[in-house]
Amino acid sequence: MSNISLHPLLNDGLTLGSGTFAGGTLVCHCADKPVKVSVGSDALHNHACGCTKCWKPDGAIFSIVGVVPKHTISVLENGDKLAIVEEAATIQRYACTGCGVHLFGRIEKAHAFHGLDFIHAELFEEQGAAAPGFAAFVSSAIEGGVDPVEMDGIRARFKDIGLEPYDCLNPPLMDALATFAAKQNA
Amino acid sequence: MSNISLHPLLNDGLTLGSGTFAGGTLVCHCADKPVKVSVGSDALHNHACGCTKCWKPDGAIFSIVGVVPKHTISVLENGDKLAIVEEAATIQRYACTGCGVHLFGRIEKAHAFHGLDFIHAELFEEQGAAAPGFAAFVSSAIEGGVDPVEMDGIRARFKDIGLEPYDCLNPPLMDALATFAAKQNA
Ligand SMILES: [Zn+2]
Ligand SMILES: [Zn+2]
Repeated sequence: MSNISLHPLLNDGLTLGSGTFAGGTLVCHCADKPVKVSVGSDALHNHACGCTKCWKPDGAIFSIVGVVPKHTISVLENGDKLAIVEEAATIQRYACTGCGVHLFGRIEKAHAFHGLDFIHAELFEEQGAAAPGFAAFVSSAIEGGVDPVEMDGIRARFKDIGLEPYDCLNPPLMDALATFAAKQNA
Repeated sequence: MSNISLHPLLNDGLTLGSGTFAGGTLVCHCADKPVKVSVGSDALHNHACGCTKCWKPDGAIFSIVGVVPKHTISVLENGDKLAIVEEAATIQRYACTGCGVHLFGRIEKAHAFHGLDFIHAELFEEQGAAAPGFAAFVSSAIEGGVDPVEMDGIRARFKDIGLEPYDCLNPPLMDALATFAAKQNA
């Protein structure tokens, strides 16, 4: 396949988490007055994501995103720079208006993942957060501009580095969504 | 796992298609005045589907559904018994008002699968139609009433009979949907 960049933290294989990471400080990319957010949890269900809404570093096709209990999140510095990217989206992503980095995403409506905030562990100042464990919404990378002919190579590359590629979420999370939907419809 | 019934045509393993099937006649389940629909194509992209909207025989958790070019479809007999199940759905499913069986489903709006009609090959009077090649929307079976604890066994059972389980469509079809979406947004 081509030398496509999935994500800077995936291109050379995975760096595994310490297994004991209990949170840290997320920092945006601003050189001046960066937004800092405290998180009291490791990144749970951490994964690569090909959707077009998640924040990605320059040149990356996939984001790396996980969740943390929202009560463990607090804004430490320069929170006045945060703004919601898209109010109507299921996940309200709080981005730095200076550099565009998303610090956390929150679901306010009734949802299987309500109570969990979405974060990008690469923004932690500290080392050791959980590595991604799978790749989600892989086909959506096409909507982000990837040539469809690259997709076989992209899926193969994910398998090479030990991340199973899915075009939605992984089975445990899809089952959680379906279980929630079943209860809502009951 | 439990002795769950995926579908009568899956429970004892797959019956492979002849490979030369070129269509036939779909017949509903009415003993009197059955609806008959002529189809001039094998079932393409045939698969098991766990969504709650596809028609399934009694006791089945999954439907078996594929597509055919819509120009190959024509109603032969008792078409006056056909009615659309849900006008607002992406796929307008034409069901027999007598027995409830869906004869074909058609997409009228702009869509990656426009021009293809959805059919259930088990309704062919003739033998030899393509076997299902994968399982789609597997997690959605929970919305159909399956206990979430059964899901591991259901996915294992699909793998046993040679059908890869997906919680959306399979990668080629998901890539087709994403490619269409990318063009729509261009
Ligand atoms: Zn910033
Ligand atoms: Zn009928």
